Amino acid sequence: MGDPAGIGPEVIMRAWASPAVHATVQPIVVGSAAVLGRAARLVGDDLNLVSIHAPEEVEQAGPDCKTVPILDVCADDAAQVPPGVIDARAGEAAYRCITAAARWALEGRIDAIVTAPLSKAALHAAGRNYPGHTELLAELCGASEFAMMLYLSPGDLMASPAGLGVAHVTLHQSMRSVFTSLTPAAIESKCHLANNVMRRLGIPRPRIAVCALNPHAGEGGLFGDEERTTIAPAVAAAVRAGLDVAGPFPADTLLLRARNGEFDAVVAMYHDQGHIALKLLGMHAAVNITLGLPIVRTSVAHGTAFDLAWQGTARPEGMIAAIQVAAKLASAG
Amino acid sequence: MGDPAGIGPEVIMRAWASPAVHATVQPIVVGSAAVLGRAARLVGDDLNLVSIHAPEEVEQAGPDCKTVPILDVCADDAAQVPPGVIDARAGEAAYRCITAAARWALEGRIDAIVTAPLSKAALHAAGRNYPGHTELLAELCGASEFAMMLYLSPGDLMASPAGLGVAHVTLHQSMRSVFTSLTPAAIESKCHLANNVMRRLGIPRPRIAVCALNPHAGEGGLFGDEERTTIAPAVAAAVRAGLDVAGPFPADTLLLRARNGEFDAVVAMYHDQGHIALKLLGMHAAVNITLGLPIVRTSVAHGTAFDLAWQGTARPEGMIAAIQVAAKLASAG
Repeated sequence: MGDPAGIGPEVIMRAWASPAVHATVQPIVVGSAAVLGRAARLVGDDLNLVSIHAPEEVEQAGPDCKTVPILDVCADDAAQVPPGVIDARAGEAAYRCITAAARWALEGRIDAIVTAPLSKAALHAAGRNYPGHTELLAELCGASEFAMMLYLSPGDLMASPAGLGVAHVTLHQSMRSVFTSLTPAAIESKCHLANNVMRRLGIPRPRIAVCALNPHAGEGGLFGDEERTTIAPAVAAAVRAGLDVAGPFPADTLLLRARNGEFDAVVAMYHDQGHIALKLLGMHAAVNITLGLPIVRTSVAHGTAFDLAWQGTARPEGMIAAIQVAAKLASAG
Repeated sequence: MGDPAGIGPEVIMRAWASPAVHATVQPIVVGSAAVLGRAARLVGDDLNLVSIHAPEEVEQAGPDCKTVPILDVCADDAAQVPPGVIDARAGEAAYRCITAAARWALEGRIDAIVTAPLSKAALHAAGRNYPGHTELLAELCGASEFAMMLYLSPGDLMASPAGLGVAHVTLHQSMRSVFTSLTPAAIESKCHLANNVMRRLGIPRPRIAVCALNPHAGEGGLFGDEERTTIAPAVAAAVRAGLDVAGPFPADTLLLRARNGEFDAVVAMYHDQGHIALKLLGMHAAVNITLGLPIVRTSVAHGTAFDLAWQGTARPEGMIAAIQVAAKLASAG
């Protein structure tokens, strides 16, 4: 459900009407029944919310475009959160949804998790000190090698024939701290994670390109040497391991080349390097995939959008795409 | 002319056929007559190259879509440079073109300079150790407060009504060195430079937004504090000085908001922050404007494209746009 003060509940209810969501999936909403009931009324699609008490009951509930099975794991006070504000009760509700869903996924009782946006500030107000969903899920799953990928499906891009994924070597950390986090091992690991997920998304031999850190890829050492000391060795190691990896390339032109179909995946050195490009290319359609977890997890790429929350104007494309990508990854095993 | 081994000569000759280039401008090409003659034959537009010996002779030469006045400032060996390679003779030719044009502009004998791409490696091979055009021009003009802006005209963007300019606080330097270069004074100075140029481009009160440095604008201090210590004070100072400046905002969503017309100009903290966005939005149409010089100087935003050089496939949109923007800035005084 994500944060009840944000647009998460609305995009879920709005996505529910899409046949694509039900084509190969039996979806369950994990969240507050009271909040989701309010979102259903906001959307006005005459949805029938059915409370279930375990993931296994989904079959009996029979989800379809009108029927919404709900597993309520939230405290009653989640429904008292006003729209568009940072609230500890909302942060706690989002936390409970994600931990419950992760547990069921780890137990093999569900095949994938798709998350709606949460507010990091609300999460912290609730005493849950994680930089974001990705890091929380990594901890819940005991994953040490993980990464966030932003992914656009083929239809969302003009030229790329197979979609485009951008994996991030570093994520929620200061720019000052990026330099010590960028090691050849970390970069090579992200190449493997990107390769694995793109294979599961249907590309037999993904073409992967690695971003430089410095402008102009350091211009031959004039503007920094991490390209030579850190990134090139990682690329060489990934190539030795059999991957189709190239780089480092200047990030500004690389992301354009990838958009134009020259690569299937890009490995970005830091958060904004990948996010600036993917948000411009497909803010509403981009899907966030957590790589390296033992479970399948996707998410919308947008945030809680507190300024738009509960106004009936939120767009569900990202949620629909996130559900479709999760289904594809889950069926790929 | 830029580097004779790159696509510069071709894009100039190809742009020449565009009536937009001659509408309000009397253009002169500063470069090697031999190289430009070869480019004219490549383009095949039946162009008539006319040698002149001083900028004042342009009137007599009568430039139009078929007539190209050329001021040759290059050594003869510029014509011997093979296509697509780094060559000291090519670097020297590009250097002579830019220094001659800058001198004439400073002397008021021409109204603006438009530059074709040069190769920094070739420039360095020629013993001219500048990180790029921008820094070379700043030195030639004795400018201490300058910045590079990438600009897209209104027609090149889907939603922005007035075009979009992105000014860079830091440019051709390593990411590690960015932190010491980012001072409140440097950031505020770039806000003023961006404001001035957007006013000259026809926006009476430009709406300017400033990028954060860290992801999520530091997420309230969790991922870095430059937003609070350095960027916010610069924004506050610019506002006190009467500018319409806001921020710092997270860079990934800010560039999307600006694309959608919410701002006229963006101030980026480092090279790739602005370049990733502008190259995705308009690689072939973007114009590079040097802010803070006593002369008008624009450029194409693309590079020498050695891999495409002298094949007859280069696109002139960027050169045409750069000439149009230079004309607009020159007429604004």
